[in-house]
Amino acid sequence: MTVRAAVAGASGYAGGELLRLLLAHPHVEIGALTGHSNAGQRLGGLQPHLLPLADRILEETTTEALAGHDVVFLALPHGQSAAVADRLGPDTLVVDMGADFRLKDPADWEAFYGSPHAGTWPYGLPELPGARTALEGSKRIAVPGCYPTAVSLALFPAYAAGLAEAEAVIVAASGTSGAGKAAKPHLLGSEVMGNMSPYGVGGGHRHTPEMIQNLSAAAGERVTVSFTPTLAPMPRGILATCSATARPGVTGETLRAAYEKAYADEPFVHLLPEGQWPATASVYGSNAVQLQVAHDPAANRIIVISAIDNLTKGTAGGAVQSMNIALGLPETTGLSTMGVAP
Amino acid sequence: MTVRAAVAGASGYAGGELLRLLLAHPHVEIGALTGHSNAGQRLGGLQPHLLPLADRILEETTTEALAGHDVVFLALPHGQSAAVADRLGPDTLVVDMGADFRLKDPADWEAFYGSPHAGTWPYGLPELPGARTALEGSKRIAVPGCYPTAVSLALFPAYAAGLAEAEAVIVAASGTSGAGKAAKPHLLGSEVMGNMSPYGVGGGHRHTPEMIQNLSAAAGERVTVSFTPTLAPMPRGILATCSATARPGVTGETLRAAYEKAYADEPFVHLLPEGQWPATASVYGSNAVQLQVAHDPAANRIIVISAIDNLTKGTAGGAVQSMNIALGLPETTGLSTMGVAP
Amino acid sequence: MTVRAAVAGASGYAGGELLRLLLAHPHVEIGALTGHSNAGQRLGGLQPHLLPLADRILEETTTEALAGHDVVFLALPHGQSAAVADRLGPDTLVVDMGADFRLKDPADWEAFYGSPHAGTWPYGLPELPGARTALEGSKRIAVPGCYPTAVSLALFPAYAAGLAEAEAVIVAASGTSGAGKAAKPHLLGSEVMGNMSPYGVGGGHRHTPEMIQNLSAAAGERVTVSFTPTLAPMPRGILATCSATARPGVTGETLRAAYEKAYADEPFVHLLPEGQWPATASVYGSNAVQLQVAHDPAANRIIVISAIDNLTKGTAGGAVQSMNIALGLPETTGLSTMGVAP
Amino acid sequence: MTVRAAVAGASGYAGGELLRLLLAHPHVEIGALTGHSNAGQRLGGLQPHLLPLADRILEETTTEALAGHDVVFLALPHGQSAAVADRLGPDTLVVDMGADFRLKDPADWEAFYGSPHAGTWPYGLPELPGARTALEGSKRIAVPGCYPTAVSLALFPAYAAGLAEAEAVIVAASGTSGAGKAAKPHLLGSEVMGNMSPYGVGGGHRHTPEMIQNLSAAAGERVTVSFTPTLAPMPRGILATCSATARPGVTGETLRAAYEKAYADEPFVHLLPEGQWPATASVYGSNAVQLQVAHDPAANRIIVISAIDNLTKGTAGGAVQSMNIALGLPETTGLSTMGVAP
Repeated sequence: MTVRAAVAGASGYAGGELLRLLLAHPHVEIGALTGHSNAGQRLGGLQPHLLPLADRILEETTTEALAGHDVVFLALPHGQSAAVADRLGPDTLVVDMGADFRLKDPADWEAFYGSPHAGTWPYGLPELPGARTALEGSKRIAVPGCYPTAVSLALFPAYAAGLAEAEAVIVAASGTSGAGKAAKPHLLGSEVMGNMSPYGVGGGHRHTPEMIQNLSAAAGERVTVSFTPTLAPMPRGILATCSATARPGVTGETLRAAYEKAYADEPFVHLLPEGQWPATASVYGSNAVQLQVAHDPAANRIIVISAIDNLTKGTAGGAVQSMNIALGLPETTGLSTMGVAP
Repeated sequence: MTVRAAVAGASGYAGGELLRLLLAHPHVEIGALTGHSNAGQRLGGLQPHLLPLADRILEETTTEALAGHDVVFLALPHGQSAAVADRLGPDTLVVDMGADFRLKDPADWEAFYGSPHAGTWPYGLPELPGARTALEGSKRIAVPGCYPTAVSLALFPAYAAGLAEAEAVIVAASGTSGAGKAAKPHLLGSEVMGNMSPYGVGGGHRHTPEMIQNLSAAAGERVTVSFTPTLAPMPRGILATCSATARPGVTGETLRAAYEKAYADEPFVHLLPEGQWPATASVYGSNAVQLQVAHDPAANRIIVISAIDNLTKGTAGGAVQSMNIALGLPETTGLSTMGVAP
Repeated sequence: MTVRAAVAGASGYAGGELLRLLLAHPHVEIGALTGHSNAGQRLGGLQPHLLPLADRILEETTTEALAGHDVVFLALPHGQSAAVADRLGPDTLVVDMGADFRLKDPADWEAFYGSPHAGTWPYGLPELPGARTALEGSKRIAVPGCYPTAVSLALFPAYAAGLAEAEAVIVAASGTSGAGKAAKPHLLGSEVMGNMSPYGVGGGHRHTPEMIQNLSAAAGERVTVSFTPTLAPMPRGILATCSATARPGVTGETLRAAYEKAYADEPFVHLLPEGQWPATASVYGSNAVQLQVAHDPAANRIIVISAIDNLTKGTAGGAVQSMNIALGLPETTGLSTMGVAP
Repeated sequence: MTVRAAVAGASGYAGGELLRLLLAHPHVEIGALTGHSNAGQRLGGLQPHLLPLADRILEETTTEALAGHDVVFLALPHGQSAAVADRLGPDTLVVDMGADFRLKDPADWEAFYGSPHAGTWPYGLPELPGARTALEGSKRIAVPGCYPTAVSLALFPAYAAGLAEAEAVIVAASGTSGAGKAAKPHLLGSEVMGNMSPYGVGGGHRHTPEMIQNLSAAAGERVTVSFTPTLAPMPRGILATCSATARPGVTGETLRAAYEKAYADEPFVHLLPEGQWPATASVYGSNAVQLQVAHDPAANRIIVISAIDNLTKGTAGGAVQSMNIALGLPETTGLSTMGVAP
């Protein structure tokens, strides 16, 4: 089986990582690559690490360019995916790596993104309860945000098992590629090296409602989320430190058992042995998730820490994993659980 | 006025930063420099950035070497300061940069450090209520830990003003110099660059009881602390993200007002203008603390974020600031609020 | 075809990178993994990025452990490979990732390594003239040093084509993994981040005679090499800036033509389009070599710059590439020319 | 004595470093701060590390704003300094941190900068023969480029002492602040972290003629320079590896003696003890220059390596040092030879 895949938005970081994975995917043939401001340029100049595609030329993102593919990946600015998807027809598998189809509640969408809600597609985080089934055979996939991937996988088992109170406190550190490739002064190397700084503090980050949606579904009640993202001096990786008040009777053992059970059959989520802690370097370039759990009896909180690569499991790897499910391929096809370290 | 200062433990990171500050201090003359495994070596080979002291030779840490100074700074392993201090006599100002005299409760000390409690000295965080007065004229100073400095300054005003419930959740990122200069595999550059990882999760970090002590004193009741430290790929700096449930009626305005009042006259603590967030790079090599506050109404939490340089305000700068007070010098003498950036 | 491979020295950086590549190699089954001080430990604690091998236990490096494999990779300290290889017998493919069998001249070996010369094996840099043929069917392979790989590929075409005088000046920057995983103070993250520093200046680096050997063979005369290695604040990568006086009549065009010809059929060496310069980030984790050439008429020098990943093409990737040739497999099997970037 | 200083171009990296130094200078009062696109903004938002100036507002760069100061520092784009300087009058000390007045040969200027030559001012590298005298009492100063500072101090003693042939080969690594604060995609943190890459290869960098000018003056004959700059993953620092063919009879001893003599009385240039090598981290934020020399008999080259902070000794520190001389102040006033490390 070979599917022909197009990538709209091939010059950015998400697009580049997706192409790296698709090049190694045994059932994918890479078709059209499109861009906007970079249309007409060689990919070799834009993504110099993708030598096998160096001589490909970016096309404009048009319906014509994207037509005739089995799968179309969209890495477009927020709000642009619906119009493109509509024109591609219902038989094309459309994988949206943007935010447009992630949120179920139109009020959430409008409050955080400020434009009309486009709808909701099957959610590309197969590890969540029910998500894998919804992806099977689907022709539309909404790839989760990078922070919601790290946070939801860290906390949903605790909520699903009734171990945590419905208020989560999350502080996450992200590598700079999460902020994209647009040149902004605060993202200059001179500014970010040797520097940790927060942003979107106090509930303003757009990924907050997505986390609330996922955790509330697992808990069966509305979970509040205090989310503080920070920018770390590294190109890739998310380390999410997640905690919540422990419900009465929770111990380190019950907590660990819940996670062992939740992830026993998951190929990409690894609950580390006791005493070993996640590290973003260990999942660099891989689709793996490293998790560890702890119970702090003095503070009466459970703490779950996850490490992912924001571009791989957090974006492009999650997209490929979900595509595999939608197409009926083995879920791990073309994906690795080996990081590039040190 | 000129005081003659000795430094025991001059080859480490805390000792090196202290020497950098003392060299710029107009009232300090640098006397004996001692070490243990490095005794007999040129300082130029151990601290190549301190060119004015390059030809100084480290002595063994003995009473003889340290005697005859007005001030003796101790940067020694835990548990060694008491014996040295006893032999220096009551007229020498002894500034302990280790943990030995920070904790008031012997049970806390024994639980976290595993040795007999040595006592409690005036605490070198002058911004805490009552601390400055206790330092004036004192001949003994216990310099706070780096994390407790960042966290206590972030949260004590909220507790002192009754704005926060008595449970704090803290996630802090530290540069690698906080882990010291001893060569350990997980601290190699190959391991830490491009990497974020946690340690001491679940209440085990030794700085936890020190935070509880400070915040409980401000709150007038026992405050629980969930503290997760993480190691960030940078040499220096601590970014502490601190939050607690807001008490009823708290708003962004009442919160901000409490911090403006608490720090109105403090020369080193800067509450940033609204919309600007702390960054560790901005306090690199300086004694400044950058703070910002937020209220998240959806999660009903207050969030306070602080940035310090762990080696300066977090260790050596705090030591010099406290020494200045003890000696009756202007508190800011020899200290800067300008970071070295970018 | 499936070959069973053992790795002696599986806990270090070279061994870890080799395992990452072998796990992705379709014809390799991973057999014994051995170590010395780490024998008895789980690989998951030593190489936390290699999740598929996390539960494997390191054995002691003994003849018994290594026997019964088709291929044995040696990542041992200098001087230990010969004894191990002798006991493995002539039918086992032994790939030495150490220096023991690289140098032809015993005097060079003794001058730079200080022990008796063990011999010379076919040299695992297939792109050099004659090297590929010597590797075909061989049962012994000496993998080149990382710097000699970067430098020889940068300069041999100029010497082979008679374009450069027989004196080369080379300054190379290496990531810290090139210095290994042994914990040494000057390799701590606190020391290397934000820092560039040279070492082995003035001809003392052990890779110098290996470069001279390769370039002299290409030139047909003795080439002198001034080599200055520097340590760069990054985990991986070598950027080698190589220059030599241009022979009369050389122009940018003749220079470029020589390189286009030399590398026209090489799958891993990429002469970049004019105007694009090599970057170590672009070859991160890949077996690719990026090259660019320039002629400076004012200084009358040719400048060739190469970028490789020191652990991949510079060590483990070169080992796998050479193994493929020795075993009669397609040379690129299991190897990638895509870097993990950004 | 107090001089009132204005800074034109206060929002960039050179301007920010200059302000950091001027704030610590006992004889300087900071007057007008001007910018172009940032005029009207608080300095606290633009230079968040300069807390003492946080509430200052940038003015437009006009003659009115800059008038009435004793010293005016210009950190402007190339080609704009002459017009501003002309309007400031001959009694104002004008210190140009741009390139406009560095080159003596109009043909060099026009070839590398493409605009008419504005003239030549006394050159702000006091360590060069004759330079200090020319600066005394001068009302105009041309601050050298950062690379020429590192390279000229590394090599001029060898040329002045007749130890080196008139062809120098230089490879230098620079931190990213050398490329300025304008947001360009290749300078993003995501691009530069973990990456070494060259630029301006083959003689094209604008600092090349400035190096040739300085070295030729020392040699008494035209010195050719092959200069390759590389971008290193660090915010600050230049490590320059400089070499040249040794003249007959040169030994390590004669070489070292020449440098000891040249720098015996220089307060900022430190020839390190034998066996210790320069490191950019050691001069971070300081005006010091660390140097080491070597003779490679096999390659018959002398190698001299220098480390500076590109923003301090390489720009703003050199400017203050030269200002001190011009004003008759002790040369080291307000400047430090202590780096901020680790």
